Amino acid sequence: MNIQLALDRMSIAEAVAMARCTEPYIDWIEVGTSLIKEYGMASVEAMRREFPQKVIVADMKTFDNAKYEFKLCFKAGADVATVMGAAPPVTVKLCVETAEQFGKQTMIDLLHTSLKQQRELSQYAQAIHCLHISKDQQEGEGSRQAAAGNGAELTSLSNPAGHLRMAAAGGITLETLPDLLTLRPAVLIVGSAITKASDPAQAARAIKAWIEEQQRSEQR
Amino acid sequence: MNIQLALDRMSIAEAVAMARCTEPYIDWIEVGTSLIKEYGMASVEAMRREFPQKVIVADMKTFDNAKYEFKLCFKAGADVATVMGAAPPVTVKLCVETAEQFGKQTMIDLLHTSLKQQRELSQYAQAIHCLHISKDQQEGEGSRQAAAGNGAELTSLSNPAGHLRMAAAGGITLETLPDLLTLRPAVLIVGSAITKASDPAQAARAIKAWIEEQQRSEQR
Repeated sequence: MNIQLALDRMSIAEAVAMARCTEPYIDWIEVGTSLIKEYGMASVEAMRREFPQKVIVADMKTFDNAKYEFKLCFKAGADVATVMGAAPPVTVKLCVETAEQFGKQTMIDLLHTSLKQQRELSQYAQAIHCLHISKDQQEGEGSRQAAAGNGAELTSLSNPAGHLRMAAAGGITLETLPDLLTLRPAVLIVGSAITKASDPAQAARAIKAWIEEQQRSEQR
Repeated sequence: MNIQLALDRMSIAEAVAMARCTEPYIDWIEVGTSLIKEYGMASVEAMRREFPQKVIVADMKTFDNAKYEFKLCFKAGADVATVMGAAPPVTVKLCVETAEQFGKQTMIDLLHTSLKQQRELSQYAQAIHCLHISKDQQEGEGSRQAAAGNGAELTSLSNPAGHLRMAAAGGITLETLPDLLTLRPAVLIVGSAITKASDPAQAARAIKAWIEEQQRSEQR
């Protein structure tokens, strides 16, 4: 299981510093949508340059103009780019195709998709399917419980054959981890539980340690 | 009726030059999503600085993080920002509220929304509701006719009481204008029919002249 550190609502310099201090405990680095819209591809380029060994995820949230947007971020150095599952099907298809042409990966963000859409999207077995409780949903409806609960519900239904690589995002903390781990996500996306912690490195280390402990106990 | 020039897939300098040469014939200038994702808010700031008298539209396509993203582009000088109608309802609500706090406007992009969603979104009478055939849909399904046809269908259904300010976008050309004008959009969004024309100024002038002629003949 990979821990993806989501970097949002900060400057590029702050994002680099945050990724640097948590580097030993995280696997993937997400350049958040807010960084991309504020600073453009310079944000992705900076992360690629500073962290050549990490997987860089560009949270493009593409909804149209698939080829152009995906090419932009792969050329800027991203390894993974996101498309909204709620976008027109042709857009998701073009994103998956473009990623394959570049030898890169697509993450399909299932935010506000119907079960019907999720089932149709499951045709893209090569993509990562991300169950996502949005920032606005968390802040508006204000509950980590809702996030964890929705995540559980969505996963079991949206990955019926259990063959998809899933990611989980949205309000994930040490407290909500137990519920999410039963879903066996390939990628666990953590943002403010690390970036807003008084000691981000310690917060990241604690999450990493908890996951490793779970994996060890499963192997016993 | 306002003509909104949509600027996409180009550099900031090219976008400024394109808006400059068509300036007398266009009303609103859209900083396209691709410019925002490539160059960040510098693209919106440049347009604001270069065209202080024009209405500047930031095509943010917000899907989450509503307050933060809308504040970003209003602070950068945008007069209008876009949110996806397919986003969670709380996100659209927060966008509309944030725009009102700034004394700015929200455009709700109806791309890939259901009729049910369009009806629910019609509660936001203060917003502009944009019927949108996406670039990927146009290129994938390759038809201006489909764009015009879908637009007509969507409008009549999505604005049942006829009280909403509508915009229309997607593959609009001089040829498809007649179908669209029956829908009485407040904003007509034109991109490549102007920007890809061999003479963009002439193309913009022709569209402007056609609309003015229609308006004159209606008044007779």
